[in-house]
Amino acid sequence: MILASRSPQRRAILEQLGIAFEVRPADVEELTQGDPKAVALENARRKSGGQPGVLGVDTLVALDGAIFGKPVDAAAAHATLRMLSGRTHEVVSGLLYGDDGVTVVTEVTFRELPDELLDWYVATGEWRERAGGYAIQGRGAALVRGIRGDYSNVVGLPVAALLDLLGVSALLSPGAR
Amino acid sequence: MILASRSPQRRAILEQLGIAFEVRPADVEELTQGDPKAVALENARRKSGGQPGVLGVDTLVALDGAIFGKPVDAAAAHATLRMLSGRTHEVVSGLLYGDDGVTVVTEVTFRELPDELLDWYVATGEWRERAGGYAIQGRGAALVRGIRGDYSNVVGLPVAALLDLLGVSALLSPGAR
Repeated sequence: MILASRSPQRRAILEQLGIAFEVRPADVEELTQGDPKAVALENARRKSGGQPGVLGVDTLVALDGAIFGKPVDAAAAHATLRMLSGRTHEVVSGLLYGDDGVTVVTEVTFRELPDELLDWYVATGEWRERAGGYAIQGRGAALVRGIRGDYSNVVGLPVAALLDLLGVSALLSPGAR
Repeated sequence: MILASRSPQRRAILEQLGIAFEVRPADVEELTQGDPKAVALENARRKSGGQPGVLGVDTLVALDGAIFGKPVDAAAAHATLRMLSGRTHEVVSGLLYGDDGVTVVTEVTFRELPDELLDWYVATGEWRERAGGYAIQGRGAALVRGIRGDYSNVVGLPVAALLDLLGVSALLSPGAR
């Protein structure tokens, strides 16, 4: 399996599962606006190129139909997290493996974020390179009240959908580590 | 804060958050039967001794009102996981910090587990020392379709409830790492 992504989080999840893979990042222009599921799936398609054995993945955060990508700076991270405070947003991933595509949605509910907590979190710098400006597998766990759906999707690679695409044999093969 | 637990998973979550703590495990006899929430809270109380500044935590898996603790051997792990296959179970934690106690429930839905997947998972040995016989933060992620509630509770320490007990100031203090 070839992973068309640079994301260290996605690599970590594949390693957690023991699925053998190679990394071959694609440099493509990504959509940033539109219907969240359609955007995530189209971006996954651009990354994978629809090639056999290649997995393309795109993950974004959506609230009220608007897409939140990676904040450009600390002020943008602060503004994004303030909008997510006390509310439930959607983490949407598109996956394309060969010709098979799927979208996965996980709902994430944030606690109310007082200024001191926002300031603390933005100061960690964890918002960099993260859709929605937080990392649930890091300090960002402190922002979250609960989720509904696949946790690994919030990290960046939905395991349940991945195994549906690859088959559980991907776990069992001699190539797995 | 003093953590009355040997669990490496609980230590890892506190380190993930940057909360300063010491470990002081308690050797107490634990309840294994009864109402799941009452059992988890009572076990947490036994571990913490109700002492100020001491956190006691107990986590168990419940299905149809029955409690699943740590499997005693591979055959028991196999039997437990087979019962959880294709169904939604509850992960129940009791927390006691000083005089303040709380219980937290997260619902976990397993995929249908064919024999080959069960055999593969039990062979990883990850079931050892895990309530319910799986580790969601490890290979066990492959067993899970989705969850509802706090993911960190399934790992062994519910972060949202912990911050409610400690206050978010636990994240911000100079003692935090």
